Amino acid sequence: MQFSPPNGAAAPRPRRRAEDARVISDVLRRAIDAGELTGALDERRLGAEFDASRNAVRDALAILRDEGIIARSPRAGTHVVNRKAAHGLDALRGLKETLSTSGEVRNDVRVATLVRAPRAVARRLQLAADSDVVYIERLRMLDDEPISLDLTYLVPDLGIDLITHDLEHTDVFALLEEISGERLAAADHTINAAAADAHSAAALEVATGSPLLLLERLTSLGPDRRPIDLEYIRLRGDRISLHATALRETNQGDAR
Amino acid sequence: MQFSPPNGAAAPRPRRRAEDARVISDVLRRAIDAGELTGALDERRLGAEFDASRNAVRDALAILRDEGIIARSPRAGTHVVNRKAAHGLDALRGLKETLSTSGEVRNDVRVATLVRAPRAVARRLQLAADSDVVYIERLRMLDDEPISLDLTYLVPDLGIDLITHDLEHTDVFALLEEISGERLAAADHTINAAAADAHSAAALEVATGSPLLLLERLTSLGPDRRPIDLEYIRLRGDRISLHATALRETNQGDAR
Repeated sequence: MQFSPPNGAAAPRPRRRAEDARVISDVLRRAIDAGELTGALDERRLGAEFDASRNAVRDALAILRDEGIIARSPRAGTHVVNRKAAHGLDALRGLKETLSTSGEVRNDVRVATLVRAPRAVARRLQLAADSDVVYIERLRMLDDEPISLDLTYLVPDLGIDLITHDLEHTDVFALLEEISGERLAAADHTINAAAADAHSAAALEVATGSPLLLLERLTSLGPDRRPIDLEYIRLRGDRISLHATALRETNQGDAR
Repeated sequence: MQFSPPNGAAAPRPRRRAEDARVISDVLRRAIDAGELTGALDERRLGAEFDASRNAVRDALAILRDEGIIARSPRAGTHVVNRKAAHGLDALRGLKETLSTSGEVRNDVRVATLVRAPRAVARRLQLAADSDVVYIERLRMLDDEPISLDLTYLVPDLGIDLITHDLEHTDVFALLEEISGERLAAADHTINAAAADAHSAAALEVATGSPLLLLERLTSLGPDRRPIDLEYIRLRGDRISLHATALRETNQGDAR
């Protein structure tokens, strides 16, 4: 691509190959994620489309190959193998509910027990400082591949009942509504990017240092919006993307 | 921590140190992010609070130190130095608008020019296949430290006017509303975790492979929600967290 500096100054300057590769990979990644781009990718056509060098296109495709979004094979050439599932943040849904079209979700329940609430957890769940809390640790599998490692704290009045249910095949969200007889109200998400530590990487079957989405979610129940469920969720960056809608003027804070 | 397997089976099993460290670091990270935990951290007190070994607490603090969330000094001991700014996804705001309380945002405009729209970009912006599009590349600085690398495509009828304005000190969102005389309507976000490539890492002044949030945002204008602004944004994982609210039943899709 040939670019001019802002405000019409001077002559166009040649762009560095790495910058072109970044633009191309960003645009293609999203088009693949949205299902707009499928099948084979042609280097020459992409070079013309982005007005970029063949080397920049190759670098862009290498980035997407490293991310597992495309692959090269002798037969099919360079082609799309998008394996990312979309997790929406606007509607409040459990993973099994949200990924029902992507595959079969199963939970490997590693821990489900009562512990004394750490101070910060008690505060978020509006429990007394020395309260007990139910702690659940699950490795969540999509079609037998681990995609998410979830740590969950639940208020004891619902959680103690909940862990006697089938946690392997049911979303905690669905069980919370079943047990309480009330509807979930809302969830506040905080999203961070984090590198996988060795231990999480082993559980999620990715390389140490792989990019993960680290999601903290506080979910509330019923018309009085009581906080009942605090989760710390590690999602594999190569398998999950998150989706959210923003409005210029939002009334979400007041919405019921 | 001592944990029992689910459904009351057998005796509690000792938890591995790495698993305790993960829980502790997750809970503390979020408490620090929320401003609930400030000042000095005491290893002994944390061990008691989480019912964990001193080694697990030390590992947890090492994780947070690596992320730049806490630091150790001879005088203050281990203490909080939270430097993450919160970027809300519910309301549609530019970075300068959103971080107005965190510090001074300035944009290093690296490119601002007209290019032929790549096919996927034309499709997202609902432009003809051979249309021109304005392309802007900005390194965004918070208090003179780079936090975000933004690639922006704008429809030409607004973008050609926009790049004659002061892009260094003004959000593109603010300029779009000023130039069009209309209000922005909504934005669709897709959020991925990605490792920084060498080139992005150098621009953002982080190590290659550092975790980044990769945000694609398509923003629409006016009552007919015309898509006008398509962005690919790399945010430093050590400086920015994203925040979003979900409702169990949302009407966002229909909202105006």
